[in-house]
Amino acid sequence: MSSTRDIDALIEMMAKLPGLGPRSARRAVLHLIRKRELQLAPLAGQMQRVADTARECARCGNVGTLEVCDICTDVARANGQICVVEDVADLWAMERGSAFKGRYHVLGGTLSALDQVGPEDLRIPQLVDRIGAEDISEVILALNATVDGQTTAHYIADQLENRVSLTSLAQGVPIGGELDYLDDGTISAALAARKRL
Amino acid sequence: MSSTRDIDALIEMMAKLPGLGPRSARRAVLHLIRKRELQLAPLAGQMQRVADTARECARCGNVGTLEVCDICTDVARANGQICVVEDVADLWAMERGSAFKGRYHVLGGTLSALDQVGPEDLRIPQLVDRIGAEDISEVILALNATVDGQTTAHYIADQLENRVSLTSLAQGVPIGGELDYLDDGTISAALAARKRL
Repeated sequence: MSSTRDIDALIEMMAKLPGLGPRSARRAVLHLIRKRELQLAPLAGQMQRVADTARECARCGNVGTLEVCDICTDVARANGQICVVEDVADLWAMERGSAFKGRYHVLGGTLSALDQVGPEDLRIPQLVDRIGAEDISEVILALNATVDGQTTAHYIADQLENRVSLTSLAQGVPIGGELDYLDDGTISAALAARKRL
Repeated sequence: MSSTRDIDALIEMMAKLPGLGPRSARRAVLHLIRKRELQLAPLAGQMQRVADTARECARCGNVGTLEVCDICTDVARANGQICVVEDVADLWAMERGSAFKGRYHVLGGTLSALDQVGPEDLRIPQLVDRIGAEDISEVILALNATVDGQTTAHYIADQLENRVSLTSLAQGVPIGGELDYLDDGTISAALAARKRL
């Protein structure tokens, strides 16, 4: 149908987003067309704005609209701590918790022999440089508890050994978590790291 | 964070799409920012194009970019049949099946006392007008098998009685469906409408 070619193209593009498939893309596009004044046009404009201005922070890899992101330029956050995360999504998750007051370093992935991702493909050399250039006393490795995440953590720990204090997030039972629903590895880790009351 | 205000606004807008929530909107936006040249900018452009050109067919309510949609102008589809659907998504679902060769009429919803949707809020008067204006012999009611869908079907049947042949989609066991997973209503309907082999 020639008159719907633009709509079909939009559905196809939306279907490529993570979490959406052909069916949900169709639903979303129909919803947008129904509200084309109120939602579709503003969304298109906002996307264009972000496409024009979004960039990665030259220092830490966070996304924003500035050469160096707000966290990196905030002097209140120069507390000597760098929290290393795999992904900007992880940085956002940490920020939602508001528990961490230092700065971040976003690797942009994990080392992976299978996918041929080496240290140079991630922001690891830049991390090593930052330890020297900024006044860093502690590096907190907040990598995912996956095999690749932990491999990457070990590699970074090797690189930074003796230069800085290295820590990682505690492993254990999540707040509100029920033992019955936890995997064995988590229970073992929580038992091994048990605290005296 | 001032430098991410545009990104936050985009996430908020995406989170309003059906099927997306705050978390999946964040993931989608991060994915788009990572591929801002390849995906974000083209998607923004395509959305703008659709926002500028998409409209509802003046005759049947299908979406497209023309005053009257391709199906309504296709003379090969003037076979005297109109298939009445609730929604454009249902029209698309019928078209994917390619089994129906006539034209459509999209109601834009169902009658609902609860939500105060009356016949005038749907495209029901226009449907009645079409029966007179076009040479229609059969109206196929392809409304959802929900209470509201069936209420609407009965209302339309009342309006068109004696003016045109009225049919509705058969109810029964879906192709590939397993009896064990079907609800009782479907099994009863399939039994009542059983066919001689």
